[in-house]
Amino acid sequence: MLSKPEIGYNECEYDVADLIVFGLPFDSTTSFRPGTRFASAAIRNEFIGIESYSPLLDEDLEEKMIHDLGDVELPFGQIESSLTSIRNCAAKVYSDQKIPFAIGGEHLVSLPLIEAAFERYPNLVVVHLDAHTDLREDYLGNPFSHASVMKRCHDFLGDGRIFQFGIRSGTKEEFQFAKDGHTHLQKFNLSGLSEIFNSFENTPVYVTVDLDVLDPSIFPGTGTPEAGGITYKELEHLFIAMQGINVIGADIVELSPHYDHSGVSTAVACKVLREMMLAILTNK
Amino acid sequence: MLSKPEIGYNECEYDVADLIVFGLPFDSTTSFRPGTRFASAAIRNEFIGIESYSPLLDEDLEEKMIHDLGDVELPFGQIESSLTSIRNCAAKVYSDQKIPFAIGGEHLVSLPLIEAAFERYPNLVVVHLDAHTDLREDYLGNPFSHASVMKRCHDFLGDGRIFQFGIRSGTKEEFQFAKDGHTHLQKFNLSGLSEIFNSFENTPVYVTVDLDVLDPSIFPGTGTPEAGGITYKELEHLFIAMQGINVIGADIVELSPHYDHSGVSTAVACKVLREMMLAILTNK
Amino acid sequence: MLSKPEIGYNECEYDVADLIVFGLPFDSTTSFRPGTRFASAAIRNEFIGIESYSPLLDEDLEEKMIHDLGDVELPFGQIESSLTSIRNCAAKVYSDQKIPFAIGGEHLVSLPLIEAAFERYPNLVVVHLDAHTDLREDYLGNPFSHASVMKRCHDFLGDGRIFQFGIRSGTKEEFQFAKDGHTHLQKFNLSGLSEIFNSFENTPVYVTVDLDVLDPSIFPGTGTPEAGGITYKELEHLFIAMQGINVIGADIVELSPHYDHSGVSTAVACKVLREMMLAILTNK
Amino acid sequence: MLSKPEIGYNECEYDVADLIVFGLPFDSTTSFRPGTRFASAAIRNEFIGIESYSPLLDEDLEEKMIHDLGDVELPFGQIESSLTSIRNCAAKVYSDQKIPFAIGGEHLVSLPLIEAAFERYPNLVVVHLDAHTDLREDYLGNPFSHASVMKRCHDFLGDGRIFQFGIRSGTKEEFQFAKDGHTHLQKFNLSGLSEIFNSFENTPVYVTVDLDVLDPSIFPGTGTPEAGGITYKELEHLFIAMQGINVIGADIVELSPHYDHSGVSTAVACKVLREMMLAILTNK
Amino acid sequence: MLSKPEIGYNECEYDVADLIVFGLPFDSTTSFRPGTRFASAAIRNEFIGIESYSPLLDEDLEEKMIHDLGDVELPFGQIESSLTSIRNCAAKVYSDQKIPFAIGGEHLVSLPLIEAAFERYPNLVVVHLDAHTDLREDYLGNPFSHASVMKRCHDFLGDGRIFQFGIRSGTKEEFQFAKDGHTHLQKFNLSGLSEIFNSFENTPVYVTVDLDVLDPSIFPGTGTPEAGGITYKELEHLFIAMQGINVIGADIVELSPHYDHSGVSTAVACKVLREMMLAILTNK
Amino acid sequence: MLSKPEIGYNECEYDVADLIVFGLPFDSTTSFRPGTRFASAAIRNEFIGIESYSPLLDEDLEEKMIHDLGDVELPFGQIESSLTSIRNCAAKVYSDQKIPFAIGGEHLVSLPLIEAAFERYPNLVVVHLDAHTDLREDYLGNPFSHASVMKRCHDFLGDGRIFQFGIRSGTKEEFQFAKDGHTHLQKFNLSGLSEIFNSFENTPVYVTVDLDVLDPSIFPGTGTPEAGGITYKELEHLFIAMQGINVIGADIVELSPHYDHSGVSTAVACKVLREMMLAILTNK
Repeated sequence: MLSKPEIGYNECEYDVADLIVFGLPFDSTTSFRPGTRFASAAIRNEFIGIESYSPLLDEDLEEKMIHDLGDVELPFGQIESSLTSIRNCAAKVYSDQKIPFAIGGEHLVSLPLIEAAFERYPNLVVVHLDAHTDLREDYLGNPFSHASVMKRCHDFLGDGRIFQFGIRSGTKEEFQFAKDGHTHLQKFNLSGLSEIFNSFENTPVYVTVDLDVLDPSIFPGTGTPEAGGITYKELEHLFIAMQGINVIGADIVELSPHYDHSGVSTAVACKVLREMMLAILTNK
Repeated sequence: MLSKPEIGYNECEYDVADLIVFGLPFDSTTSFRPGTRFASAAIRNEFIGIESYSPLLDEDLEEKMIHDLGDVELPFGQIESSLTSIRNCAAKVYSDQKIPFAIGGEHLVSLPLIEAAFERYPNLVVVHLDAHTDLREDYLGNPFSHASVMKRCHDFLGDGRIFQFGIRSGTKEEFQFAKDGHTHLQKFNLSGLSEIFNSFENTPVYVTVDLDVLDPSIFPGTGTPEAGGITYKELEHLFIAMQGINVIGADIVELSPHYDHSGVSTAVACKVLREMMLAILTNK
Repeated sequence: MLSKPEIGYNECEYDVADLIVFGLPFDSTTSFRPGTRFASAAIRNEFIGIESYSPLLDEDLEEKMIHDLGDVELPFGQIESSLTSIRNCAAKVYSDQKIPFAIGGEHLVSLPLIEAAFERYPNLVVVHLDAHTDLREDYLGNPFSHASVMKRCHDFLGDGRIFQFGIRSGTKEEFQFAKDGHTHLQKFNLSGLSEIFNSFENTPVYVTVDLDVLDPSIFPGTGTPEAGGITYKELEHLFIAMQGINVIGADIVELSPHYDHSGVSTAVACKVLREMMLAILTNK
Repeated sequence: MLSKPEIGYNECEYDVADLIVFGLPFDSTTSFRPGTRFASAAIRNEFIGIESYSPLLDEDLEEKMIHDLGDVELPFGQIESSLTSIRNCAAKVYSDQKIPFAIGGEHLVSLPLIEAAFERYPNLVVVHLDAHTDLREDYLGNPFSHASVMKRCHDFLGDGRIFQFGIRSGTKEEFQFAKDGHTHLQKFNLSGLSEIFNSFENTPVYVTVDLDVLDPSIFPGTGTPEAGGITYKELEHLFIAMQGINVIGADIVELSPHYDHSGVSTAVACKVLREMMLAILTNK
Repeated sequence: MLSKPEIGYNECEYDVADLIVFGLPFDSTTSFRPGTRFASAAIRNEFIGIESYSPLLDEDLEEKMIHDLGDVELPFGQIESSLTSIRNCAAKVYSDQKIPFAIGGEHLVSLPLIEAAFERYPNLVVVHLDAHTDLREDYLGNPFSHASVMKRCHDFLGDGRIFQFGIRSGTKEEFQFAKDGHTHLQKFNLSGLSEIFNSFENTPVYVTVDLDVLDPSIFPGTGTPEAGGITYKELEHLFIAMQGINVIGADIVELSPHYDHSGVSTAVACKVLREMMLAILTNK
Repeated sequence: MLSKPEIGYNECEYDVADLIVFGLPFDSTTSFRPGTRFASAAIRNEFIGIESYSPLLDEDLEEKMIHDLGDVELPFGQIESSLTSIRNCAAKVYSDQKIPFAIGGEHLVSLPLIEAAFERYPNLVVVHLDAHTDLREDYLGNPFSHASVMKRCHDFLGDGRIFQFGIRSGTKEEFQFAKDGHTHLQKFNLSGLSEIFNSFENTPVYVTVDLDVLDPSIFPGTGTPEAGGITYKELEHLFIAMQGINVIGADIVELSPHYDHSGVSTAVACKVLREMMLAILTNK
């Protein structure tokens, strides 16, 4: 008879859940338009607006065990302590043998999430969908920036472990870094994504989706909209490719809901979240 | 020298018109974001912004006989009497041997419209474009809801008379109902639509277009935007398929103009309205 | 370390709370622009943005015992059963000897709330701030409408029990009804409000605030904005007048957050809610 | 049973009407933010949202004889022919012994309206409410501009016939022109307005209200919002002062509805229109 | 250490620049929704938000010589003198042996730009991307209108010199004019564009892009959004086709930034501007 | 003939200017809604929309010597180095014997500005208009926050040097700190402001205006709108009080333009900037 906003349809207790959702309201290093701090609240509010069943995957949230932890409290403007709090939250979920699914926030939140995943799964690979390379050594002198997050991950993962798709913006140097073989970088689209997922076998996979990989026509509510992105139907290839794969953690980042008054961007993020959770939990 | 907002370019008197347009400002059962009550006013205001000629169909509104009745007055929150008023309006148009074209409002308005069509044309078939199945037995206990409208039509039309396209959201049970053969349901796109129209021959056809069948990128102004829809260019297949077919009634529903401040959704609805009217009136 | 949206700063369990907040997402009879169904969610999301301390009242939410029940689930378009659910919720709070504070929704929600209050406190008086008289016998034939809510309350309360302030819109007949002595009606402003509160002594008082009593300059986010309203500073007279009075129930209604993209209307509603809760709980 | 948008509640035929409303969708000389061309359509759409009865004036639109002509068709970017069309429309209304009430458009539309009034009533006085002096000799070399409209009127009216109120923006030279006695100019507010109206006795009065005389807090939807304006309650002094005066023509200008997504500016314009029409038609 | 908004990344002095950018804040003949006067300011403000490097063209703005002149001052509502000012500005750039790149404004600005180009390059051809034919003889009697701009260019260029792509709106007569061989007109898409560019060899080419050739899903911020347009990825064929061609002038027109609060339309315009400048300056 | 956006009407070179304007796009510690980084760009864009002459002060910008430096470049998320850059910029202006006028950014930018002023004028007093006390010892552990800026200034200014007006939000502890005599704090309004300015005689005065001191009705475009603020007309008392006073530096902060799509907040900020500059430069 009474309701409060929560993600998931069969919301269960933490202890029995397979997948743990939490929000990361952090946008301190955003270089253009801030506001991703409001993403998890917006998603929680609107999640009720989508169905629990996916006709694409033929799976239903009502049959899955998911717990919504709420938002990690992060002090504005204090980058270092925020990264530590995020890493601790993810590490706790891993130590409880569950799958963390984070809702950003800006893309820098993926750094502590992937660090925590790497600590538990040293043979980890990372699949990264994005409009931007995120491979800068630093941004205006700052090595911990949403424009450098994949470079920071490469620092500890090394070559051949990062697979980037949909990339259509960056400096010449960043694209050269990928061409030199440090990451697998597919420009403009998701070509080859299914094959690469199939090649992973049992390797643990972390999936990070910067939602601005989508074209701004369908996802205007983000900090740095970049024309020429993929359609939602193209993104569905990711959801299908993830089914049956050993995905051990995931995040979706860079929804900035105040920049899209139509609410479509938030609705899209909710649907991406549903499909990714269902793909990860297929047969669970 | 003076103008007032009306739909159509060669606005003629009711008596000599072939096609009768009317608005249905009704959104009482909308489950998520209300506001479709403002659709017909918005379309009337903006219709002047589009050309009378269609390069796609090579037809011109200036050569067609169309009358705009205005809006049917419907009391807010009183579902039963509203449905009766709508049914009466459509029945009057049918008794005058004209083609009704209604502008919703939410999708429940199609129920009395199709009832009135069925009374006159018992061998009617219904073509239904939508993001949602609309096949629920009821919604939160209410059998008369925009989420149940096609189920209510199936109650009196029976199996094999409803052809659904573009569907990408619903419960598992709704999709199963279609799979069991009660309706023809094409998921995600308009595949097979032209062939089905061609198979109708002289059968009277009612066409109901829930505009949210379009992708939210091009049609954000609706109550429950659902990613993964068809493009406007895909929808053009409907207009072409309708030419030469015995379409005896039609509606477009679920424009909620306040949710799209850019005005694009209303402009799209105006163009869909023009193309559907021209397709119906081809060679008339 | 983790947070979820809730109203109140010292959120305590139901059993020990003095005041119980709940949301009523209901806008089925809204005659112009719907959307008050989103008010309680918006307030819950933004309440964190205001301080717990009121310099006006010198009281602090951190020292008060408040419990947020969440939203009562109300089926769209089903007026009768919704009113019953609301009445039951309030009656339960009264039977537990607590003070209910409801967040609308449209103004019709006040009818079951005041009915439940009247059942417990037969000598109840009602203070009503609003731009509109809400004294219609019916609206387009419907006796249960947000435009008739005070008339419906008068049906069982009778003359001399309703005190209306800030009224600036209605039919000639409605204003005549008040002039004939059935309600105390102060046009345009809050003149005399403090004196009337002082005259109540220990009489139980229910306070219903239609937020459109505020001028649309400060509260644009409502269904029927009506120019010429009171300023927020004038409304502060209500908060001060309520301190020390036996207020046994209250509601704020008619916030329609989607119509104010600046967020100011929701911020105003949060502050009104804080001040009214603090005024009711002064010395508790 | 059917409705189309029109201004007025007791819409009657032109021949029997006392007051004739028409729209002037013209904004060709707007210097900052264009869009007043959409004002009359917006007002027509929203007028249904306000009551017919004014508690301030104790008058009711349902008892008045008003006809809505629609919009005068004006070619974009062609200033001279537009001004002629407007003048002709007003002259026709005067020759039929009726009162014209125009809805702008930008303020330049008042020039042909006042010219037509002056032709019929050579002893005319003009009351002008505005944020801006509108007394420039020209604007960027153009003598026919919304920034020069009162100067152009002064060209044929001469000294002592223009009464300006609420003015708070202009060049030093414009204020000096008024100080030199060419117009009566009350800076910042409506001080003295009632007295001046009372002094008119039977002199024919034309009232032109640039709605940006209102503070942008209550009227943001205009081309050049100027802080420090009057409140709506202050503007009510105009409505009361107009009752019993020989007002022979009026206009309201400079609503630019697209700049106010809340709809409040349009709602305010509707109410100003109602009050001014009722004041003019008091005892008629 | 200090920054002011300018287009380009390696902003150099006029004398040494190869390409000269300037803004044309002109929208006097806009027939539907005005506001393109704000386009160049919006683009200047947001240009910093995109990278200097194009992964599509493998070229970098930091290596190009570009100077931003600012906006040409154009008096509102004075069409003739505005067209003269624009023509003079372009003629000066041509006389200095540089390439002008104008940012509209409405499409009529292309007329004086192409006139200036034609004066210098009498064997000029024009490539025109647009949703609209722009081939009207006049618009509401006005021969100088954004709906007539290509007809006015045909007046002096003659047959076989104008190549139109993406056209999907116009009158029957306009399409017939093209069918009669006066212009090359490709309906709906860019089919054949690469082949035509290749056929130009050393002929001087002027490229005018009405940004509403893009689908309104990706470019809602324009005066007359027209569904069924090309995607941004389709537009990329233009950029590639332009590389190595003798493009001697270009413009992008019809961005109306206030109609797209998400900012995506402006971001798209910035990217189109970058790609077109880089394509023109390839190997320079 | 050509224009680029700049603040001021008689823009002169730095060397001969009396007053130096610069922008500070910094919002790293904003606790609720970020976006003040866009304020100076918005003001630069819109400043052309207001007149150069002030009828309130009878002064004209065209007669004043003002230079606009542009924006100080500040790396996002790096608080310490940003504060240093701001302090250096102000110190340079002071060393050149000019008056700095900064446009925030969030309120923390006032800390380095006042530090630089204090270094040059050790007997400085600070006048602070704001909705919020800004006297927290820290915010979520961070001593350098926009909620602590006045406390940080008190650290080096000491008691009796800070004069706060319009304050209506803060913790109980903050109000107690003022009551204990550490600052002069006038709750809710500007009462006593003129008298205090008059008492300053030749003491150097720094004026910092957090624009959220204004009521959100007139200034919705800010991070934490707080109802019950002063009107623009009340704020005019500040401008008048400043004339003839030895104001040696000033700032306006907390405009967040993206939260007010009507543009009114930016227009208000432009007018406040004009009036404050004119008041400071009266008789200069």
